[in-house]
Amino acid sequence: MSKVLLAIDVGGSSSRAHIVDKTGHCRGRGRNRGGNPASTGPEEAAEAIVAAVSAALADAGGGPFEIEGALIALAGPKAHVAKARLEAAFHDFGLSGPIVFAGDLLAMFASATAAHEGYCLVAGTGAGVVRIRAGVIDKAVDAAGWLLGDLGSGYWLGHQAAKAVVAELDGRGEASALTPALLDGLDIDWCDGRASDGRPVALRAFTDAIYALRPIELARFAPLVVANRGDAVAARLLAAAERYLVADFQAAFDPGLAGPVVIGGGVSAHLAGLGAAIAGIVRAGGQTPDIRPVSDGSVGAVVLALRADGVKVDEAMREKIAASVAAR
Amino acid sequence: MSKVLLAIDVGGSSSRAHIVDKTGHCRGRGRNRGGNPASTGPEEAAEAIVAAVSAALADAGGGPFEIEGALIALAGPKAHVAKARLEAAFHDFGLSGPIVFAGDLLAMFASATAAHEGYCLVAGTGAGVVRIRAGVIDKAVDAAGWLLGDLGSGYWLGHQAAKAVVAELDGRGEASALTPALLDGLDIDWCDGRASDGRPVALRAFTDAIYALRPIELARFAPLVVANRGDAVAARLLAAAERYLVADFQAAFDPGLAGPVVIGGGVSAHLAGLGAAIAGIVRAGGQTPDIRPVSDGSVGAVVLALRADGVKVDEAMREKIAASVAAR
Repeated sequence: MSKVLLAIDVGGSSSRAHIVDKTGHCRGRGRNRGGNPASTGPEEAAEAIVAAVSAALADAGGGPFEIEGALIALAGPKAHVAKARLEAAFHDFGLSGPIVFAGDLLAMFASATAAHEGYCLVAGTGAGVVRIRAGVIDKAVDAAGWLLGDLGSGYWLGHQAAKAVVAELDGRGEASALTPALLDGLDIDWCDGRASDGRPVALRAFTDAIYALRPIELARFAPLVVANRGDAVAARLLAAAERYLVADFQAAFDPGLAGPVVIGGGVSAHLAGLGAAIAGIVRAGGQTPDIRPVSDGSVGAVVLALRADGVKVDEAMREKIAASVAAR
Repeated sequence: MSKVLLAIDVGGSSSRAHIVDKTGHCRGRGRNRGGNPASTGPEEAAEAIVAAVSAALADAGGGPFEIEGALIALAGPKAHVAKARLEAAFHDFGLSGPIVFAGDLLAMFASATAAHEGYCLVAGTGAGVVRIRAGVIDKAVDAAGWLLGDLGSGYWLGHQAAKAVVAELDGRGEASALTPALLDGLDIDWCDGRASDGRPVALRAFTDAIYALRPIELARFAPLVVANRGDAVAARLLAAAERYLVADFQAAFDPGLAGPVVIGGGVSAHLAGLGAAIAGIVRAGGQTPDIRPVSDGSVGAVVLALRADGVKVDEAMREKIAASVAAR
């Protein structure tokens, strides 16, 4: 029976599972919807994780495997996941070892570097910066979730866009290309009639459609903000997102702690001045900037799974893992 | 068997029911928790309404009554209430006529004036302004609910305060008296330790406590913002709330439509410059300001219930209703 490890990177929009052997070779991969438990509920989070693992096992040929350990990288406290459900499902899959949890930003960091010190900035569905010292999170700035922060994230952009639509339609806000874009995105016709509550019919329909979503789903509008970056309202939102993330980094940065700055998440790639602003802060602290964009925390979750099992992962090993994951 | 009408004013923080006869005499009153369906769910909203009515009927001596009509004033579309559940309960209470819905701001307006034209500004749990023409809402500005607007409301103040606490504790934000106030309000000790996720222990506890609430419950922190108005962060939030409400009024105001401006809700009373700013806008439009503060929409819900039943309510009748409700 093959001895393997299981690594799962749980993001706001998707959960990605990988089966690896202890040489860092990826044997199978699977994905499912996002499983961030703070925004979806513990049972749904567990369900998404289990489905991603099940797909990865199928991709790996179905086994049987002896899974000697599992690492789950996710945002928020692990208590938010239905752990009993995970344990039962993973046991059925062949898990003989422990389930270990790690922060999603730690996995993002380890995707891009084998270093044990540095910084990770993420702006995906959520947003924040962590400072990493001796392999653990030493300081976290924002990444406080949709209700309490995540300023500059995909959720934040989508939420601000939705509020801008309401403000335009009820006469407070300025006209913006975001309004037809978001109405279109929800299949709402822009007609001129007024409902009995003194609001345009389109606004009533928009409001009803938004309240039928889970709040975190507002992140789906972030790509519309990016696509309409020529619009003044959208441009201001993107500029504000960049300012929030730069301020987060400034609060997390310690001139006494050198290391790479890993930047991840679907939003950060669209913030044109972000990399230069971060590099400026690093330089002002007397360090040489080493900025590394990364797409997600999949590779890092594998790195952390191996390390949790006692395998030493240096830069060459991390590169091997990254190549193996990419080739799969 | 006494013939009566039933009027229920459903706010974000409480639901108030009144039993009245057709002369406007209040026979009984009852209250229960808030029943705003957009924030609590249709079944819970119906449950709060039914409990308030049940208390009012008990207060009125228990009947039997023939309830010839019921009017429910509430925020948001009536479709959000479990109407079948209300109908069954009201039928058991003795309702023989229809259940009519009206906007909560229309009830607030009718609490302070028998006029059919004018404006109502509310800043309670929610916030917004309506313009009333020929007895119906002609234009609504904001009042879009906690997720899409309600800028300057009790929810908004509480939400901003909670975000300010997180920003201070993770090192982004400035020190504020709101931080110890909100931590105290949640029985969280302010200790200096750091949790394993790089955050202060108090921040982790605060974040967990906030996500355990329904978002609308953040409005509970609004009184702490008011109580700490000497604090710079709190003062800025109150000033911003006032600016939002003044802008809402500006967008709703039509110099061609004269009438009283009714101001209600628990927050508006604490915005020191609000009345003067509104009066300035009215004067600039060539009208004489007639600004009327009001505590809630209870009297107005009774006025609307009588009107829905065909009773003419003039200013004298409204004053009689107000006195009868106050005396009960």
